[in-house]
Formats: sequence, structure tokens, C-alpha cells
Amino acid sequence: MTTTLVSAQERMQLARTASRSVGLLSDAAKADLLRSIADAIEANVSEIVAANADDLARGAADGLSTGLLDRLRLDDARVRALAAAVRDVALLPDPVGRVIDDRTLENGLNLQKVSVPFGVVGAIYEARPNVTVDIAALALRSGNAVVLRGGSAAASSNAELIRVMRGALAASGVDPEAIQSVDDFGREGARALMRARGLVDVLVPRGSAQLIETVVTESSVPVIETGAGVVHIVLDSTARLDWATDIVVNAKVQRPSVCNAVETLLVMRDAADRLVPPVVAALQAQGVTVHGDEAAQSLASDVVPATEADWATEHMSLDVSVRIVDDLDAALEHIRTYSTQHTESIITDNDTHAERFLAEVDSAVVMVNASTRFTDGGEFGFGAEVGISTQKLHARGPMGLPELTTTKWLARGGGQIRR
Amino acid sequence: MTTTLVSAQERMQLARTASRSVGLLSDAAKADLLRSIADAIEANVSEIVAANADDLARGAADGLSTGLLDRLRLDDARVRALAAAVRDVALLPDPVGRVIDDRTLENGLNLQKVSVPFGVVGAIYEARPNVTVDIAALALRSGNAVVLRGGSAAASSNAELIRVMRGALAASGVDPEAIQSVDDFGREGARALMRARGLVDVLVPRGSAQLIETVVTESSVPVIETGAGVVHIVLDSTARLDWATDIVVNAKVQRPSVCNAVETLLVMRDAADRLVPPVVAALQAQGVTVHGDEAAQSLASDVVPATEADWATEHMSLDVSVRIVDDLDAALEHIRTYSTQHTESIITDNDTHAERFLAEVDSAVVMVNASTRFTDGGEFGFGAEVGISTQKLHARGPMGLPELTTTKWLARGGGQIRR
Repeated sequence: MTTTLVSAQERMQLARTASRSVGLLSDAAKADLLRSIADAIEANVSEIVAANADDLARGAADGLSTGLLDRLRLDDARVRALAAAVRDVALLPDPVGRVIDDRTLENGLNLQKVSVPFGVVGAIYEARPNVTVDIAALALRSGNAVVLRGGSAAASSNAELIRVMRGALAASGVDPEAIQSVDDFGREGARALMRARGLVDVLVPRGSAQLIETVVTESSVPVIETGAGVVHIVLDSTARLDWATDIVVNAKVQRPSVCNAVETLLVMRDAADRLVPPVVAALQAQGVTVHGDEAAQSLASDVVPATEADWATEHMSLDVSVRIVDDLDAALEHIRTYSTQHTESIITDNDTHAERFLAEVDSAVVMVNASTRFTDGGEFGFGAEVGISTQKLHARGPMGLPELTTTKWLARGGGQIRR
Repeated sequence: MTTTLVSAQERMQLARTASRSVGLLSDAAKADLLRSIADAIEANVSEIVAANADDLARGAADGLSTGLLDRLRLDDARVRALAAAVRDVALLPDPVGRVIDDRTLENGLNLQKVSVPFGVVGAIYEARPNVTVDIAALALRSGNAVVLRGGSAAASSNAELIRVMRGALAASGVDPEAIQSVDDFGREGARALMRARGLVDVLVPRGSAQLIETVVTESSVPVIETGAGVVHIVLDSTARLDWATDIVVNAKVQRPSVCNAVETLLVMRDAADRLVPPVVAALQAQGVTVHGDEAAQSLASDVVPATEADWATEHMSLDVSVRIVDDLDAALEHIRTYSTQHTESIITDNDTHAERFLAEVDSAVVMVNASTRFTDGGEFGFGAEVGISTQKLHARGPMGLPELTTTKWLARGGGQIRR
């Protein structure tokens, strides 16, 4: 990245300094900058694919699974898709400069609360090189500098993508230090990033539950916790069978490896006879392995026994757990115990139950009669997604560009003093 | 508090359970509850004053300073003022249930983003028993349970106030476990509170810079950092002398012990002859000790030499530091180096400088031609103040009741699945 060797700390200081000029760029300048990045990515497809080939070769030698290798892979089409995604982000409205509150005190002092960039956004993520470009584009579009720490398995791909993006910054007259990586410092880089209070304003971990837990526990930089989803669907006594079947199959099968896929079905005992056999059959027809409690096992064939661990597991695979519960209170209690507070849905025709579920479930997104797969920035109409926050501070649920800004109060007076 | 001895962890679990019912209380029920608390405080004035006398006697024996003893003291009038403040909070609009976003997707799925209570709010603060009542009232008004950890010097006062408030909860049919204290566990209580991820949703430290730093560093519960203010006023070349004098004196002298009081004046070199002598004289006439760099010392009498430490110090006293700077860039650089990002103000007649200052200073509140003392929830019209956030996540600047809520998305569908 740079020819002189600098510490991770110095790189973050450079990002901090760069953030001051990036934060003052106009909407048009930021959009132009993103288009330049997209152009540069397209102009360097072969270099990026070649760097990625190094990572793939190393990953294969290290015995990475097919799934991990697929997440790591960049071919010509995927690189072009990355560039297209950057162009999409360029088209989004500028989240900076919105006037969120405006009040004039009796003494004439005017107070405006306006959205401003955070400054420096940090990201720690796994071996998915697309995240490198994604986060950099979202951070820059919202006027932030970015410090990236990607999985070491994607080191060559990330280094090349960052070289290309920094080149586009420099060519646009923007300080290239606004995109930094601490990848080459290994674990020390991640540690330095988590301790960079005062240099990095917010840290977004993206990846496995374990990675997120580590960052949340170790970071003294404020964290926006994203991701892990032990997602529940409750099939109420009055659930329509067609909705129950369609929604459960969609929520499990359409893309099982993502955080908004359902992991556990809770079925009311008085509707279990009616709902469990057809819903389980529909899931099994799609290749899903159904883990069930004893009651569920007795109602359908080929249901494997659910263990205590199953209830707390985000399978990320074609597996689902089924539990029969006595009533809505029991369902709510199960959710309180095992949910990661990401998304839960109830299928019901009972309005009282629907409203109780909406009021009492303490999750980022609570649904009635809809697939949990809708918890997604794109589906919500945000145009881009920074991640899905499962914490309560600052942002909750799908995060778009506005969630990469903070606010400040501007006070314009004419000599006012406090009495 | 309770007759059976339970662990700090168990108390927080009780608060968590209580938070579920408190979170569902109506606006009217919460307002009534606060009025009952105010009544109970007034009905127990003598018990509260007696408990406080124990703390004062212990404090005097321990050699607490006059200032600390004054902060600790509750007399009849101060207890009644506490009750009145609780009644004021009861009158504030309910921050829960606001619809912040409402969108219906093309497929008919309706999405509403609504404000909801955090759940359990934790507070760690020093020996100011008024904070005990303040934070409990604000938390309950916003539908939250609260876990308190006050300074040990106020232990008897806090225990009595909490006993009275819990009594009012029970008498109102609300789970009294919604107000918890971990004071009697000493340092272990504070430690347990900082590690109560999953039980406590947000932790608000209030007090010295050192206390806040400890909480920010040690807590795995998300923190809202409040308070410490190394506040600057810049006297620009074009500053009106009357505004400069009035604002600087007001910002330093009106209440020197608070976080929005000014600590450092930065004066443009080409206006120093004109501004420094009268401004320093006006401060000295009010008993302020002026610490200055060499240039400032040469322009006014009785200016003591400023040390490097002075620039980074929140004096909380009638002391102010004065530095002469070459230009606006030098002033901005000084602020970047030493500011705690609380409040800064510029006194100027130059619109370009005013707008640059507003845009480039990275603080919670940035002012032009006004006293920094206006950074206050009451002055901003919030009706109550939870604290002044100096962080960028979730809340920045004075925090009112809405900052004690988070959001959730409610999705109401009719069988929608993702395509």
C-alpha cells in the first residue's frame, strides 16, 4: 500500500486526517468519486482476478471448504458486479447535511441539528472481498474515511482492490489515505483497530457470530453489532396453512446461509396436528432436515430429535428446528430465551395475538404474516445495506447510508448569554 | 432493599423481567407512576434527610471537601425540589410509540419504524443523590427499568430514595424490581453492571472524566459517553468586543463547575491587542485566574504562565487558559488537539469564518456568537436532560427522553414471501 512501513496506528491517523477533507466533499463530488472507483475496478478486472487466483490457490492448499472458496472467488462477472454496485451507491441521496431539527430559542439563538459523517468508519470482516469494496463505497458516499480489516484468506484480493480504489481517489484529487487497510498487520492490525478510540469513530464487524462476539467484547471503539440471526416463526392456532407453508419454506429455503433465514418454528399445540405434517413435508420436499421435539417427531416422519443446542443454533444450512408450544406466552418465552433479537414472525389470523407479538417481541424486526427474508436493506428500499444491526444503540435492523452518519448541533447567535 | 440476599446479577435479571411490563405501560400510567413517586418522596422528606445526615457525617469524618459535601447534601428544600423535578418529567410527552418511518412495499407489506424503550438502562455516577431520582424518573417515563450504581459516599441517601421509589411502584401496581441498585455490592456491583450484556441495554456514566473513562474502557454493555468538556471560545479578528467580553465572562463565571463552562480562549494574533486586555480584565474582575501563553502574558497583567497540561484541563473552577493563535487554521488545529468534542464557540463578524468553524469543528455543539453555557437539555427545550453525549453513536449533545428509546420495525403482511 505504502512504500514506507508505518504502524497500524499511523495508518489510522492518516485516515483520520483524510476524513476531514472527505467530510467536506459535496454530494456531486462524492458521487463522482464513486463512479471513478467503479471505472477503476472495471479497468483492472484482470489484475483483480489474478490477485484473487493467488488467494484461491492458497485457500485450496489450506483446505478451505467449497463454500468458503466460493465466497472468496472473484471472476470477471463478479468484479463487474462489484463495480455496478458502487455505481448504485453513487446514485443514492447524500445522507450528509440533512436538517433533522431546527429550533429558535426565545432569545433568538437558532439551533439546527444536522447530519454529519462519523469521520472514520472501521470494518472487521471475513474472507469476502466484495465487502472490501462495499464498505469503502458506503463509507465514502457518506463522507467517511474507512479502515478495513478483512479475512487473511482474501489478503491478495483485498490488497489489489484497495490499491485500485486508492488510485481512483488520488486521480480524483481526494486524499487516498481515506481508504486504509490494516490487513498486513495480521491479528495485531485487528487489535489496533479495536483499540483506536479517538481515531476510529465506529467499528462494524461483519461475519460469524464468533467474530462479532470478539469485536463486541474487545473493542473500546463503539461497535455496531450486526448479523447473527437465530430467527423464529410462530405458527399460531389460527395460522392459514397456505401462508404458513409458503412463508416457512421461503424463509428457510430461498437462501439458507443468510442471517434472516428462519432457524426455529414454534407451533401452537392445538394446531400442531393440522400444521406440522404438511409444513414439515413441504420443507423436506426441498431437502430440509427437520429437527423436532418429541411432539413434532410424533406428527411427521423423518424428523430427527432436536437437542438443546439446536434451539440456540444459527444453522446457516438446510436445517430447521421445530418445537410444539402450549400457547403464545410459551412461544414468547422461548423467543426471549433463544432469539438473537434479529427477526421473528408470527403467522396468525388473530389480531390480538398479532398485536401482542408486535408489542412484546424485543427484536429489530417483528413481523406478522410475512417471510423473515424481508429483513434486508434492499428489500426495505434503502438502496444499499451496511449490515443488519442487532443492537439497540444508534441503529436497529437493516442499516442504510444514513446510519453511517452522526449529528451535530449548529448554534447561530448574535451575542446571546445565559441568564 | 430486599430481605433475601441476591447477587448483582440476579437483581439485574429482576430488572430485565420488570422491564417487560414497564415497557407496555401507557403514557397516562407512566405519568401517574411518576406523580406517585413525587408524592412518596414528599411524604418521606424527614426520612430522606435523616439518611442523608448519615452520609454527611461519614463524609465529614472521611474529610470530604466542602464542595463534595455540598453536592451530597439533601435538606428539606432540596428533597422537595427533587419531587418537583419528577413531576416535571411526568408532564413531558411520552417518547415511546412515535412512528418514525412508515413505508409500504410494492407487494403490500407495511413497515413501520416505531420508538420503543431500551429495556433496562444502567447508570453509574458519583455521590450526588439527586441523580438517583433523576435517572430513575427519566428511565421510567420512557418505559425502561433502571439499575443504579451511585457513589458510595451517598449510600444511605440512595438506599432511602430507592426504598421510597420502589414503595411508590408497588403501591401503583408496578413491579418494584423496575428500580434496582447495586450499590451494596461495592465495586463488584459496578463491575457486574458493566458486564451485564444481555441484561442491561445501555449504560450511562455521569461524573468525572476518570469515571467516564473507566466505564467506557471496561464496559461490554453499550455506553453513552457523557460529559467531560474542555470547551473553547475563539475570538476572531473581527469579534465585537462587547460580545466577546459578555460571552466569555458568562461562559466562565456563571457556573464554573459544569461541563459547558469555557476552559480555553483562542485569540487571533491580529486582534490580541484589542481584545485580550479588556477581556482578561473583565474575567479578573470576577475573580477568574487567567493562565496565558507568553503573548497573552505580555498583553495583560497578573496572567500566570499556562502549562501544556492547562490546554487539556477541564478546570471546573474560576480558571481559564488563553492562547494567541496566528489564524483560524491554527485555532482549529488547537481544538482538534485538545477538545473533548463537547462545545466550541467562535465570536466573529466574518461569515466565511463562521461557516468554516461550524463545518469543520467536530464537536457535539458548535456555536457562533453565543455562550457555550447554552449546551443544556433545559436550554434546548427538552424539558429534562439525561446527560450531554460527547460520543457520536446514538446521541450527540444534550439528550432528552427520546434518547432513552430505541426503535423496532413492525412488519404487517398478508402472506408475502420474498421472490
